[in-house]
Amino acid sequence: MSLVVIGSVAFDALETPFGKTDKIIGGAATYITLSASYSVKPVKLVAVVGDDFPQSDVLLLQEHGVDTEGLQVKAGEKSFFWSGKYSTDLNSRETLQTELNVLADFDPIIPDSYQDCKYLMLGNLTPQVQRLVIQRLVNRPKLIVLDTMNFWMDVALEELLTTIEMVDVLSINDEEARQLSGEYSLVKAARKIMAMGPKYLIIKKGEHGALLFCKNKVFFAPALPLEEVFDPTGAGDTFAGGFIGHLAATDDISFDNMKRAVIHGSAMASFCVEKFGTERLINLTKKEIEARERQFAELVNVEPISIEA
Amino acid sequence: MSLVVIGSVAFDALETPFGKTDKIIGGAATYITLSASYSVKPVKLVAVVGDDFPQSDVLLLQEHGVDTEGLQVKAGEKSFFWSGKYSTDLNSRETLQTELNVLADFDPIIPDSYQDCKYLMLGNLTPQVQRLVIQRLVNRPKLIVLDTMNFWMDVALEELLTTIEMVDVLSINDEEARQLSGEYSLVKAARKIMAMGPKYLIIKKGEHGALLFCKNKVFFAPALPLEEVFDPTGAGDTFAGGFIGHLAATDDISFDNMKRAVIHGSAMASFCVEKFGTERLINLTKKEIEARERQFAELVNVEPISIEA
Repeated sequence: MSLVVIGSVAFDALETPFGKTDKIIGGAATYITLSASYSVKPVKLVAVVGDDFPQSDVLLLQEHGVDTEGLQVKAGEKSFFWSGKYSTDLNSRETLQTELNVLADFDPIIPDSYQDCKYLMLGNLTPQVQRLVIQRLVNRPKLIVLDTMNFWMDVALEELLTTIEMVDVLSINDEEARQLSGEYSLVKAARKIMAMGPKYLIIKKGEHGALLFCKNKVFFAPALPLEEVFDPTGAGDTFAGGFIGHLAATDDISFDNMKRAVIHGSAMASFCVEKFGTERLINLTKKEIEARERQFAELVNVEPISIEA
Repeated sequence: MSLVVIGSVAFDALETPFGKTDKIIGGAATYITLSASYSVKPVKLVAVVGDDFPQSDVLLLQEHGVDTEGLQVKAGEKSFFWSGKYSTDLNSRETLQTELNVLADFDPIIPDSYQDCKYLMLGNLTPQVQRLVIQRLVNRPKLIVLDTMNFWMDVALEELLTTIEMVDVLSINDEEARQLSGEYSLVKAARKIMAMGPKYLIIKKGEHGALLFCKNKVFFAPALPLEEVFDPTGAGDTFAGGFIGHLAATDDISFDNMKRAVIHGSAMASFCVEKFGTERLINLTKKEIEARERQFAELVNVEPISIEA
């Protein structure tokens, strides 16, 4: 079930209350592909880096089953770079530096071998570029998932709305859902956003879990209460990668299976935040993932309620 | 299974983005007893009001199965009064006026007929008064639940800690759990707070649901995503009333049954916020409550996860 992922592959420099990193591998597509790779292989990557991007990091992706044929390496150019600093409670972050570099004029080239794409994950990027990928696929994928952020609502709303109209699943956080819909109630927000095109809406609420909407149905996946959150970078992308990875692996886009995909994505994200950057994500075992998913099931598990008079 | 509830019975004047009320019946014990009354009758109330408190409101409680023998009416004095105004998103509120009146020197008298108390709910009040109730019961109840708030952590921490040590279940919100423990992580906060005495800890997260901790076990009950929240006043008390009402009705304090009690409390709270004050809470049917509980079950219901390679 061919899975194609587009998004940034980049350098991040992170500062959390627990320490800071030099430039490490980051970017939406990095987290998405690594996370999805635990469900399905290969994960076909479309992205661009500069020639400053180390071959060892490309190898790291390949070792996890990421097909890098669609990864363009631009000679003489630099990779996208983002640096940020988190607040003490990790609930907000400040962008210290953003260098678009190769992303400034990213032209997403789809290798012929990617044309069998059945599941398409559009990681956070300019909405125009996300749309180009859809247009360049000869056959429309069975499922298109779009992840975006408030930045594009601020600077490119019309472009974003045009892209949103073309996808099946939109994944945003609660504040973004409120901004996009103009509604505070997430139930009302979801209804308005689904009227914009997507049949499914995922609202990510960070430490408060995630909601999945489809028509009048709603599913809630809790977040695991964690002892320690070390670095939230990439948690949303890791969630998205786990979500679409599960769907691609099972090739089942029923609402019931989407629920399982949301739980799986939440479990993957709960690993991501335990260490800096991709550190935790690159060394997971199937056993650990299964155990974590059982924890999620346990967390909300309750015997049927008996009603009293 | 005799249930005794202590807390304020009072007047509230509320202002939300959807309108405002004159003085209406309010107070922690009002919400707790009304909510519990849908699970178990009678609910034995210990509280104090002034002679300005209308007989019709006392009758309202009695009609719901509330035993008001322990409700003192102070001649020539006025009832506790609180007025508050909610922010546009209902997530914060400003206290406009607080008149302690009869609460200033409340001496909680326990009628002899309350001495069979097996379940004791200490609604939000001065910790000294909450403690007096425990001391005045000849036999220690099977289960004591304490609800409190940040105000007492600010002004009477030592008294509060002494009282907390004596109870089985503490119910507070996430910010209060962080303040009481000095820990941001709710898992760490829970561990520290349970070391203060209570075997069980409930952390209420409002629109984000509630967590129930016991030793190393944790249970999460979501909040129902609501179309419209009209007035959040009393939601926490209604939750507490539903929680202890379910336990008293079933006389089962296993962790499994406490989970059900948390779900039932959450369902009751979801009704409370739909209208002003106690309006929604006084006209519920068993059928409506059962349907709401099924919605809670549906919200997190998922078939067992199949793990893929």
